[in-house]
Amino acid sequence: MAGAEWESLEQCLEKNLPPAELREVKRLLYGKETRKLELPSRASEAALEGDFELQGYAFEAAEEQLRRPRIVRVGLVQNRIPLPADAPVAKQVSAIHERIEVIAEVAAMCGVNIICFQEAWTMPFAFCTREKLPWTEFAESAEAGPTTRFCQKLAKKYDMVVVSPILERDEEHGDVLWNTAVVISSSGAVLGKTRKNHIPRVGDFNESTYYMEGNLGHPVFQTKFGRIAVNICYGRHHPLNWLMFSVNGAEIIFNPSATIGALSESLWPIEARNAAIANHCFTCAINRVGEEFFPNEFTSGDGKKAHHNFGYFYGSSYVAAPDSSRTPGLSRNRDGLLVAELNLNLCRQMSDIWNFKMTGRYEMYARELTEAVKPDYNPNIVKE
Amino acid sequence: MAGAEWESLEQCLEKNLPPAELREVKRLLYGKETRKLELPSRASEAALEGDFELQGYAFEAAEEQLRRPRIVRVGLVQNRIPLPADAPVAKQVSAIHERIEVIAEVAAMCGVNIICFQEAWTMPFAFCTREKLPWTEFAESAEAGPTTRFCQKLAKKYDMVVVSPILERDEEHGDVLWNTAVVISSSGAVLGKTRKNHIPRVGDFNESTYYMEGNLGHPVFQTKFGRIAVNICYGRHHPLNWLMFSVNGAEIIFNPSATIGALSESLWPIEARNAAIANHCFTCAINRVGEEFFPNEFTSGDGKKAHHNFGYFYGSSYVAAPDSSRTPGLSRNRDGLLVAELNLNLCRQMSDIWNFKMTGRYEMYARELTEAVKPDYNPNIVKE
Repeated sequence: MAGAEWESLEQCLEKNLPPAELREVKRLLYGKETRKLELPSRASEAALEGDFELQGYAFEAAEEQLRRPRIVRVGLVQNRIPLPADAPVAKQVSAIHERIEVIAEVAAMCGVNIICFQEAWTMPFAFCTREKLPWTEFAESAEAGPTTRFCQKLAKKYDMVVVSPILERDEEHGDVLWNTAVVISSSGAVLGKTRKNHIPRVGDFNESTYYMEGNLGHPVFQTKFGRIAVNICYGRHHPLNWLMFSVNGAEIIFNPSATIGALSESLWPIEARNAAIANHCFTCAINRVGEEFFPNEFTSGDGKKAHHNFGYFYGSSYVAAPDSSRTPGLSRNRDGLLVAELNLNLCRQMSDIWNFKMTGRYEMYARELTEAVKPDYNPNIVKE
Repeated sequence: MAGAEWESLEQCLEKNLPPAELREVKRLLYGKETRKLELPSRASEAALEGDFELQGYAFEAAEEQLRRPRIVRVGLVQNRIPLPADAPVAKQVSAIHERIEVIAEVAAMCGVNIICFQEAWTMPFAFCTREKLPWTEFAESAEAGPTTRFCQKLAKKYDMVVVSPILERDEEHGDVLWNTAVVISSSGAVLGKTRKNHIPRVGDFNESTYYMEGNLGHPVFQTKFGRIAVNICYGRHHPLNWLMFSVNGAEIIFNPSATIGALSESLWPIEARNAAIANHCFTCAINRVGEEFFPNEFTSGDGKKAHHNFGYFYGSSYVAAPDSSRTPGLSRNRDGLLVAELNLNLCRQMSDIWNFKMTGRYEMYARELTEAVKPDYNPNIVKE
């Protein structure tokens, strides 16, 4: 049942478990319960009309004397590609812009302050094909491409920070490609960009033939709603990637992704959540939804027959908190908007309780890693 | 229901979910299903007689042409302290030795090659009290103490590697204390020791008033059954600790722990499992069981009244594999022995599939961490 026919883990548990047992299962699986957010009815109606799921949850923090609650609402968007992958490039981009515009409007109704779209959101995830045209035509300038201009308009209109993960064409450096997230301030200005630091070489994720590992390090963006960072897709498997964003001060780390059931579905609830716990921050894991079919057949390096589809993107986007709690996931089979209200004070509160940054012994690890990467490194192995 | 009255997540799901839904929930929560091990009936009978749970599971790997399967059986032991914490020290130690001897014998019947006991297994977890006597009297020499001699006997008798986490008295260095795991070869020789690298300062975990952060780095022990390491308790919250054991070649990392429901139960299924995924190795998370009452009342730094008990140790020991699968947990309320059959070939197979060590960019992180720990570090924050 790894395809669309199964809606979500949460829905299954809610349906089948008696209330007392459900409470205990949720405590073990999701930590402290998140409060359901009351969202405006016109938002729910618009979501119904637009045929996408709308869910809202709130994380709370203890009251403090000297800091007021720092409340921010994030919006996570997961979606199918609205047109088939063999439609003309320009039409596909327009259709996806239109689709996202509808969802962003509902996000605005729900008071979302920071919205993040899925990885490479303007295009099908075509890197499985290893073909260059037409897919590389979806690449755009991070600073001045049509998608960035589209997001700037949204940002300004709704006073909303927009995180826009795209395929970037870097004209200033020999026209190379990058997997990039553009961060647009609520003022409408491009605040900056960050690049995917770790590139997969697994299954049909042939991205290493399109772009290289990011060269921008671990920037954190100070927005008026809080300090955010973007760990793109495969970077979530690398605990050090999350760590460095956190060391640089990120309070919310978005993880826009594109990943399929057969490969990663049992990893999905683990990794972003572990990162939220280990780094005393919020993490927002976003995955696309549905199946994408490509015009030319391709093989998957697994000895199986050539085929046209990449696999099933299982959605299930969620937000995890530093106190180990998390929201339920969006569904596995529908477009959706997840609204989460965060109190950013929770980050420092959890840090003061658990002290992982203080007990982390980073000097030791800097030293040990520096040694370990040397070609003549002699691992510490004790033998009889 | 954070106490003893609730047996386990798995038992609740098995009881309530229809078979098809159960299969899907397990796929999402536990990855690829682990095979139930057939254990000798005399082992089951002995476990019944000894009043402890016995479970067995096997993880499989693909066949290779040049390497034979590298099969190893590990045994994870979780238990209550058999005598109350106010019984005389020597009696408590004898009683726990006797209890463990019974469980180890059953482990031997089940063909266990490497057995690991819970953190500070010879004593109640008395560090909540902040009292020194009588608790520090449980400390022993790692090389020549009575508990090490006891484990050497077991190791030799059963041709079994024994991982024995104790409170260590280091007579060679000013009689200081350490939280240490002694690794005893199947030959009966002390192969070496490893020390808890990260010491908690959270809730009633007042261990920082007893011993300091370990000074032995990240040793890996080459046993005849495979390369093992020991990440003691609070070290599981630190992804870098797992990483360095793995960089040094560990195929199995044991995580002997002592942790309570109110603090960590929703973190428990996440952290060791994330480590197994991120580091392409097996991890074995072990927690003690039950409640421990101390003679003198103590407070918990939470504004609540003084009390005598530390909280509920929730057991739930489990093994996680590099392919993101895991065993069910032992129960939350009974002593238990979890036998897991591992095919260590799975580690390199998963590494070849996912490539996290290759795509990990450790040079970059060594450089970034080296900068980040400097007192005048300027975090990479982008402002408008």
